[in-house]
Amino acid sequence: MRIGELSRRTGVSVPTIKYYVREGLLPAGRLTSPNQASYDETHERRLRLVRALIDVGGLSVAALREVLDAIDDPQRPVHKVLGEATHRLTASSGGEADPEREAARVTAKELVADRGWRVGDENPALDALAGALAALRQVGHADFFEVLDTYAEAAERVAAADLAWVAGGARREDLVESAVVGTVLGEAVFAALRRLAHVDASARRYGEEEGEARE
Amino acid sequence: MRIGELSRRTGVSVPTIKYYVREGLLPAGRLTSPNQASYDETHERRLRLVRALIDVGGLSVAALREVLDAIDDPQRPVHKVLGEATHRLTASSGGEADPEREAARVTAKELVADRGWRVGDENPALDALAGALAALRQVGHADFFEVLDTYAEAAERVAAADLAWVAGGARREDLVESAVVGTVLGEAVFAALRRLAHVDASARRYGEEEGEARE
Repeated sequence: MRIGELSRRTGVSVPTIKYYVREGLLPAGRLTSPNQASYDETHERRLRLVRALIDVGGLSVAALREVLDAIDDPQRPVHKVLGEATHRLTASSGGEADPEREAARVTAKELVADRGWRVGDENPALDALAGALAALRQVGHADFFEVLDTYAEAAERVAAADLAWVAGGARREDLVESAVVGTVLGEAVFAALRRLAHVDASARRYGEEEGEARE
Repeated sequence: MRIGELSRRTGVSVPTIKYYVREGLLPAGRLTSPNQASYDETHERRLRLVRALIDVGGLSVAALREVLDAIDDPQRPVHKVLGEATHRLTASSGGEADPEREAARVTAKELVADRGWRVGDENPALDALAGALAALRQVGHADFFEVLDTYAEAAERVAAADLAWVAGGARREDLVESAVVGTVLGEAVFAALRRLAHVDASARRYGEEEGEARE
C-alpha cells in the first residue's frame, strides 16, 4: 500500500509516519519508484505497536528504539531478549546516591529476598522501587511500608498471569513483542483498575449515599 | 528559617523554590523584612511532597496545583475531597471516540460491573482503562483480556490495603494527603514490584542458569 493508505488505516499522519521511519522506529517502505514507497501489513502492525507504546505507555522515542532493536534481533536467545526488552522499559530514576536512597535500596533488596525473587542487584526496577520508597519516607509516609507485602503478593500473581499469557505466543517474535506490550500496557491497565477499585473501596468505607458514590 | 536553609534541608534549589511559590504549589514565606521571608516546617513538608509527586509521580505543575487545592480546602467533606484529589491524578487520555474505543469502554464497564465496583460512568480511570484496552486490541493482543480478572482481583486487594492505610491517618489533612501520596507513589511502587516479579517468573519459566538469571 502507499503511505497515504497506511496513514488512513492507522490514523497516524503522513509526516509522523515519515518521522518514525527517520528515527528508526519503522522500517522504510519498499521503493517502487525513485520517490514512491510501498508498505505492507508488517508496517501497519509495527506502526500500531509504536503508537500504543508512545501514547498509552508514555515511552520516549529513544527508549522505544532500543526496545524495538531488542525485539528485532533474531540472534539473541529468548530469555536474554525478554530481560533486555523489559530492562530498557524501566528508566533509571537518576536520583543521586544519598543516605535515604541507600537505606531504601536495602529495604527494596530485603523485600525481594523475602519473596525469594531471583533478581540481579543491577536491575533498574530495584532502583525504581528504592526511589519510590525513599520518596515515601521523605514525605513522612514511611508507614506505607506496612502494605508492601500486600503489594508484592499482588505483583507476584499479576506477573505469573503475564508470563503465562506471554508464553502463549508461539513464535519468538510474538513472545518478545508480547512481553513488551504486556509490560507497558499491562501497567496502564493495572493502574486504571487500582484507581477504580479505590473509588469503590472509598465509597464503602466512607459510607456515602449510593447516588453520591456514583461519581 | 531562611530560604537558603529550606533549600539546604530539602535539596531543592532556591530558584526552584521561588518558582513553586509563584506557581502556587508552595505558600509564600512570612515576610520578616521587605525583601526577606521566613519558612517553617510546614513549608518543608509541602516542598518534599511537591518534589515527590513531580519526580516520582510524574505529575505536571498544573495537575499538582489542582490536587493541592483539593488537599487544602477545609470546607469539603472528606469523601468528596478524596474523590476529587484522585480524580485529578488521572489524566483524561484525550483519545478520540472511535468504534474500537467505544467497544473498549463497554468492556471496561462490564469488568467494573462484574466486580461489583460502584464507579460512576464519568470516572476518568474508566477512560484510561478503555484507552489501554483499545491499544491492546489495536496491536493484535486482545487475548490479553484473559488476564483481566487476575488484574482486577489484585487491584482490589491492593486498593483495600491502600484504604486501610489511608484511614490510619487521624487528621483530615493527613487523610487526603495520604490518599494522594498513596495513589501516586503506590503506583510507582507496584509497577516496580511487578517488573521485579517478571524477572523472577521469566527466569523460572525459561530455565536459565542461576548465574544468568541474576541480571
